Amino acid sequence: MSSETVLDEVEAASAVDRPGGDDRAAGMLGRFQQVRSFSQSLCATLEPEDYVVQSMPDVSPTKWHLAHTSWFFETFILKVWMPGYQPEVPEYAYLFNSYYNAAGDMHRRDLRGLISRPTVAEAYRFRRSIDQHVQELLESADHELIDTLEPVFTIGLQHEQQHQELLVTDIKHVFAQNPLHPIFRERNDRPQRRTIAPCGFVDFEEAIVEIGHGGRGFSYDNEGPRHRALVGAFSLATRPVTNGEYIAFIEDGGYKRPDHWLSLGWTTVNQPASGEWEAPLYWTKRDGNWWNFTLSGMRPVDEAEPVTHVSHFEADAFANWSGARLPTEFEWERAAAGLEIEGNFVDTERFQPAPVEAQPNGKLTRMFGDVWEWTRSAYLPYPGYRAEPGALGEYNGKFMSSQMVLRGGSCATSQNHIRPTYRNFFQPEKRWQFTGIRLARDPR
Amino acid sequence: MSSETVLDEVEAASAVDRPGGDDRAAGMLGRFQQVRSFSQSLCATLEPEDYVVQSMPDVSPTKWHLAHTSWFFETFILKVWMPGYQPEVPEYAYLFNSYYNAAGDMHRRDLRGLISRPTVAEAYRFRRSIDQHVQELLESADHELIDTLEPVFTIGLQHEQQHQELLVTDIKHVFAQNPLHPIFRERNDRPQRRTIAPCGFVDFEEAIVEIGHGGRGFSYDNEGPRHRALVGAFSLATRPVTNGEYIAFIEDGGYKRPDHWLSLGWTTVNQPASGEWEAPLYWTKRDGNWWNFTLSGMRPVDEAEPVTHVSHFEADAFANWSGARLPTEFEWERAAAGLEIEGNFVDTERFQPAPVEAQPNGKLTRMFGDVWEWTRSAYLPYPGYRAEPGALGEYNGKFMSSQMVLRGGSCATSQNHIRPTYRNFFQPEKRWQFTGIRLARDPR
Amino acid sequence: MSSETVLDEVEAASAVDRPGGDDRAAGMLGRFQQVRSFSQSLCATLEPEDYVVQSMPDVSPTKWHLAHTSWFFETFILKVWMPGYQPEVPEYAYLFNSYYNAAGDMHRRDLRGLISRPTVAEAYRFRRSIDQHVQELLESADHELIDTLEPVFTIGLQHEQQHQELLVTDIKHVFAQNPLHPIFRERNDRPQRRTIAPCGFVDFEEAIVEIGHGGRGFSYDNEGPRHRALVGAFSLATRPVTNGEYIAFIEDGGYKRPDHWLSLGWTTVNQPASGEWEAPLYWTKRDGNWWNFTLSGMRPVDEAEPVTHVSHFEADAFANWSGARLPTEFEWERAAAGLEIEGNFVDTERFQPAPVEAQPNGKLTRMFGDVWEWTRSAYLPYPGYRAEPGALGEYNGKFMSSQMVLRGGSCATSQNHIRPTYRNFFQPEKRWQFTGIRLARDPR
Amino acid sequence: MSSETVLDEVEAASAVDRPGGDDRAAGMLGRFQQVRSFSQSLCATLEPEDYVVQSMPDVSPTKWHLAHTSWFFETFILKVWMPGYQPEVPEYAYLFNSYYNAAGDMHRRDLRGLISRPTVAEAYRFRRSIDQHVQELLESADHELIDTLEPVFTIGLQHEQQHQELLVTDIKHVFAQNPLHPIFRERNDRPQRRTIAPCGFVDFEEAIVEIGHGGRGFSYDNEGPRHRALVGAFSLATRPVTNGEYIAFIEDGGYKRPDHWLSLGWTTVNQPASGEWEAPLYWTKRDGNWWNFTLSGMRPVDEAEPVTHVSHFEADAFANWSGARLPTEFEWERAAAGLEIEGNFVDTERFQPAPVEAQPNGKLTRMFGDVWEWTRSAYLPYPGYRAEPGALGEYNGKFMSSQMVLRGGSCATSQNHIRPTYRNFFQPEKRWQFTGIRLARDPR
Repeated sequence: MSSETVLDEVEAASAVDRPGGDDRAAGMLGRFQQVRSFSQSLCATLEPEDYVVQSMPDVSPTKWHLAHTSWFFETFILKVWMPGYQPEVPEYAYLFNSYYNAAGDMHRRDLRGLISRPTVAEAYRFRRSIDQHVQELLESADHELIDTLEPVFTIGLQHEQQHQELLVTDIKHVFAQNPLHPIFRERNDRPQRRTIAPCGFVDFEEAIVEIGHGGRGFSYDNEGPRHRALVGAFSLATRPVTNGEYIAFIEDGGYKRPDHWLSLGWTTVNQPASGEWEAPLYWTKRDGNWWNFTLSGMRPVDEAEPVTHVSHFEADAFANWSGARLPTEFEWERAAAGLEIEGNFVDTERFQPAPVEAQPNGKLTRMFGDVWEWTRSAYLPYPGYRAEPGALGEYNGKFMSSQMVLRGGSCATSQNHIRPTYRNFFQPEKRWQFTGIRLARDPR
Repeated sequence: MSSETVLDEVEAASAVDRPGGDDRAAGMLGRFQQVRSFSQSLCATLEPEDYVVQSMPDVSPTKWHLAHTSWFFETFILKVWMPGYQPEVPEYAYLFNSYYNAAGDMHRRDLRGLISRPTVAEAYRFRRSIDQHVQELLESADHELIDTLEPVFTIGLQHEQQHQELLVTDIKHVFAQNPLHPIFRERNDRPQRRTIAPCGFVDFEEAIVEIGHGGRGFSYDNEGPRHRALVGAFSLATRPVTNGEYIAFIEDGGYKRPDHWLSLGWTTVNQPASGEWEAPLYWTKRDGNWWNFTLSGMRPVDEAEPVTHVSHFEADAFANWSGARLPTEFEWERAAAGLEIEGNFVDTERFQPAPVEAQPNGKLTRMFGDVWEWTRSAYLPYPGYRAEPGALGEYNGKFMSSQMVLRGGSCATSQNHIRPTYRNFFQPEKRWQFTGIRLARDPR
Repeated sequence: MSSETVLDEVEAASAVDRPGGDDRAAGMLGRFQQVRSFSQSLCATLEPEDYVVQSMPDVSPTKWHLAHTSWFFETFILKVWMPGYQPEVPEYAYLFNSYYNAAGDMHRRDLRGLISRPTVAEAYRFRRSIDQHVQELLESADHELIDTLEPVFTIGLQHEQQHQELLVTDIKHVFAQNPLHPIFRERNDRPQRRTIAPCGFVDFEEAIVEIGHGGRGFSYDNEGPRHRALVGAFSLATRPVTNGEYIAFIEDGGYKRPDHWLSLGWTTVNQPASGEWEAPLYWTKRDGNWWNFTLSGMRPVDEAEPVTHVSHFEADAFANWSGARLPTEFEWERAAAGLEIEGNFVDTERFQPAPVEAQPNGKLTRMFGDVWEWTRSAYLPYPGYRAEPGALGEYNGKFMSSQMVLRGGSCATSQNHIRPTYRNFFQPEKRWQFTGIRLARDPR
Repeated sequence: MSSETVLDEVEAASAVDRPGGDDRAAGMLGRFQQVRSFSQSLCATLEPEDYVVQSMPDVSPTKWHLAHTSWFFETFILKVWMPGYQPEVPEYAYLFNSYYNAAGDMHRRDLRGLISRPTVAEAYRFRRSIDQHVQELLESADHELIDTLEPVFTIGLQHEQQHQELLVTDIKHVFAQNPLHPIFRERNDRPQRRTIAPCGFVDFEEAIVEIGHGGRGFSYDNEGPRHRALVGAFSLATRPVTNGEYIAFIEDGGYKRPDHWLSLGWTTVNQPASGEWEAPLYWTKRDGNWWNFTLSGMRPVDEAEPVTHVSHFEADAFANWSGARLPTEFEWERAAAGLEIEGNFVDTERFQPAPVEAQPNGKLTRMFGDVWEWTRSAYLPYPGYRAEPGALGEYNGKFMSSQMVLRGGSCATSQNHIRPTYRNFFQPEKRWQFTGIRLARDPR
């Protein structure tokens, strides 16, 4: 995931009507403290040792997430606008840069787990130091500086929310490597047998629609420019695919029949290096029953939960098997346009998709939260898109190759982070995020 | 590249008016003999040893191309419709299947170069046997059988033309590994200093256009269904980027500055395994001057020729550097819609892009032939696309992942093989095809 | 490194004269507590995060060493001889088995760094539990049980000493990955300019000598059977090669001239994956001077110290360059036979070879401690050697392939662990141990 | 395999008594023509395509063997001693140098199969040109030049014989990749059921013996210096292990029980990359019976033949399983010292080990020919060995690392190439040579 603000023009134009620097600064500080402290509260159950491990190159150590999000404020705010700011540990600029070539050299991503120092305590000390400096800066800033700071500051907060999601999915992957099955959050409920009504579909007519972010409030640069697009008629499933439905796919030989799969997917499924997939990531069969590793430990698979930890390849194969397809991101955005942003987000601290309940059909449900929904759209620039110059221009644009768009957020996303226009993106073989499936259909 | 015919409905409807089985069969046989013999004429200068080598997994031995294209007719025509047909060497079904899971098991692609038998002479014998059987079948077929055969037969010919292009680009890669620099076709002209006018641009207004194949004649299934799309205003360069322009990019540090590159491109350029790219494939610097390996041996780079053997990553970086971008495949198709299909094709047997001449601007030139033009569009299904069941349904659809679309054909493409709607596709890092760059721009 | 006791037969025969169970048990307990507490004292400066990291497959996390050495006593002593012993965490049997197939399945070696739990505190708790149980067992054991226990118990202590050495060299490798250059032990002295006399040689005549362990006291099974061998005349250097001498080799193009190198060595030196060696491991050049990373941080290379962290390939190339060769392990053992075991061991807690002083020639010095000395002998079984059945038979014998013998111990070895007959062994490309060079010569 | 002559001093001293230049030159020319033409006769059944393929990095294309052995005479004889000699194709110096750094740069070994030119016809033309020049040189050489030439000339012939063996084993590996199972030499006999007497053992007492070459005639430098060694008492099997005996090992779970195996062997056996070995190379099970690919095609395993295509790891595991061990190379040489050099060599053109017949025990049989016998000795320099300076010094010495010694020659070795002192060497995991097993035992 990544970023550059498209400042709301209306908002910019009406700066005279906005609260004075003091009030706005106070608001910004409040949001800052809320987001920053949530990062730390996510770590409540972690031991220092847990913060260190990088279980695969895609995963970063918890410690690294905490430090990198602080580095972001240091690099793009404090070093730029705070007079006389001196970093306590200059090497952090190298250690905690992720991928911003314009911000200098960086430590190799796949080696992040080899760095035991700074310790967790030192990483928290770094956070506190950044927090204090940001607070000082905001409290002493005049109107003009606040105007200047705000866009980058907002990106900093959005960026930290993205890393909160990664922190959760990364520690899940770390814990999953451990035969002791550590528990991130205790949970005492057990799966219940529920009867789930078959999935319905909602129909949409062909239309020329506006795609991309255009209103008030923050968005990433990759959500714009807002532009018109012709979206043909389609139908969209009322809810995500469940574990129960996915088990039917498995039991029907879904992983054994090449005709369901993209060629690259079939290769991936059968690659010894990927352990020859036969189910979603984290699933294991014990005495004929499927169990999965969750952030609350090893538990029986709940058939009513939306299936998650599937790759784009699996999502596409499932869709083919079921006679449907994945939606495009434009179809998804059109369908989501007017919907309320509500659902099972990280704010619930369930850290797992919630079971689907019986429901009246004819209505889209769970478009937000639970699982990121794979689309059949490649992650590409919108017409007229151009990355900004400078380091923050690297946030999104340079990743527009060989990835697929996902929409709607997950049980590890913050509720106030997601939007109908939000474009997440991953390579089609990735499975460690909370990724799932919503089906679409061509008109009959 | 890949296939399933969308039969021209008009043609199908008017079957009654068409020449009788005899005449149509004769026409088919004529086309068959023309295409089949061209495959062999391409090999005129090859020694038996040249037919064997596979210089990388993407490359197939010449011998394999000759046999695989014959296997195609054997598998999808003779075994299906010729009563009593018995393959002389049953193992060929395994050795010469490329990727059709529905047609049975197959030999591993990356091991094709380890198979010295059948010899070249045996491969030609196999071709002759297939040719004779096909001739017999056509000559004895009634109207009804001709109707049934024709679509698959046509795919067989189109398929062979695709392999003719691969044969040419593959043998170039094979010869390029050899310090002796073998020559595929002698050529005696030398590059001349020419003054090339700067590239102009042609402007297009926003419009709803029809995309995809819809008229008479053959097309692959991935060119349909024909559908309406909203294409915004854009400008398209009047000609491809030249070697001279590309050298300016290199000399301006184009390969050294990450800000021009997609993230994955930057990784690829700097990968020791890819030899740390600093120029197009086949280029080498001698005493300060660029030379390139061509099918006519090692020659000085001609600054007036369209640059070729660049990856999508390089095409994209060049476009960024020059303040432009690559066109979408829809922009390209719209611009190409009414143009004559003429240019430098394999039919000229130059096997190298031809120098750009001085030209009046304001007109698109060289849209066809010379070099495949990378677009910024990912290779994805058109709305309503659905792969056919069966082996031939594997031709195109299963490759719709992680590849980019190229348009227009190259100096290794047959002139009667290309169309404005033709979609070629390769992974963004591939360079061994005759791939080049045409720039596009957003409206000012 | 590895183990099986060859019990001293004389000692066994005279059991009647030995102190009673009580006294012997008390002696064993004393040695046990001394060795066990030294393991922990080595970790005095470590933070919990440091215990977790595995910087390459050869390296194990500190935490793992502490737990594995405890697992050894649990598996081979407590589970066998302590009635009613119940492991608190049964999964430890899997997590902390290193390579004993006969003791059950084990966790993959290269994944040891992905296991954040048990925490460091839990690992210490495991140690304490094992310590208490062993103490109980010893205190309650009768003569007969003591007789039975003692050989395995002794191996357990020797085994732990080997892991102490690995713990030190492993944490050095871990810290070396960190751009912050963490310090394991503070040290305030600086290298001094010393004039070092050229190395002398001591001559030995051809003789039939006894090779292998034969006297009282503990030895590993790979040191026997003691047997006669014909050792031809040779000369052995009076001291190890110094950093200063090694720099002369580097500056003479030692790493650039293939004629000095074994073929496999030359390949290794030039492998991109090994970073193209141009100096010993941990060396780096800053402004024309060599620095090296030590357990006391980044320091200028001291020219008087024995060179260390060189592979067998480098040792062999250096010897070729200097017109000498490496000694065989039999030459080394013969020369070391009567010498006092004294030198710079882990007991000094210098954790770095000590500078060579001016010295009278004609005498072998520093045969023990400082650096393990590569021999030109492959690690092979002695005549009549046969691994014991059972898990402890896996200690040494199964590694007798593709490794070279090293002799004499290092600055990370315990003084009471080493013997003239002690055979250490590593693959010829390994460099992370304190390995160095002593030259030998054929008679003139 | 590799080389530097240790010239027989007696022979050198008595040069005056030897036949004049003419006669000696004629003798040399005769041997030259015999060896050179045998290389070509080995290729009698090959098609040009067969000469090109390199089926793994260890294998060289047939064409390369023919050219490289010619390059050897060109480089070390013609370019040095033939006045005015001009190579026709200077690039051959680069293409056909194998590993002699001192002779200039060389083409990468693992890329030899990518070079289709020179063609087979051109390679033969190169051979003829070299043959003619060598003939001219010999015919015009005076006594003195003959004296100078002879040692290098002899190495050239020995070298070519080594490549004849590699040519045979390499083409076997090439053909084995082909599902069509090409046949190198027709053979019509079928395996017969024979009763094979159990293997006996011959006992040897401890002795000080002379090891290494010391008499008249050619030997490689690695066979010297001749030196005294103490060889303890041992017993040696009267014949190699048969396929029948090896099948008993397989059926007893030999490949499934880690306790038989060296650690590195166990890893190799279970490596997915090596296809998880469960039998010798080229064996396959059909309907419960073992078949193996031979140079005469796919045939049932003959239980009476010596087992071949086993690695050192398998030889060692088999020996452990059977309660014996492999001999050292010194034991082997001692036992072979007085024996006649007779057996199943390449001269028989069987290209496969011959079945063991019933035989009186108490006598060593088949010490030469059939299969190279793995020893438990690492390939290391003899005391006093020192590689010559210059390119020919690279022949043997630089490979003395991480390889094991084999003795006795195989069914692909020339009878006049082998000696009791001959040391062949390969890495312990290699299987594509005709390698087999002879057991040894410690005295009871």
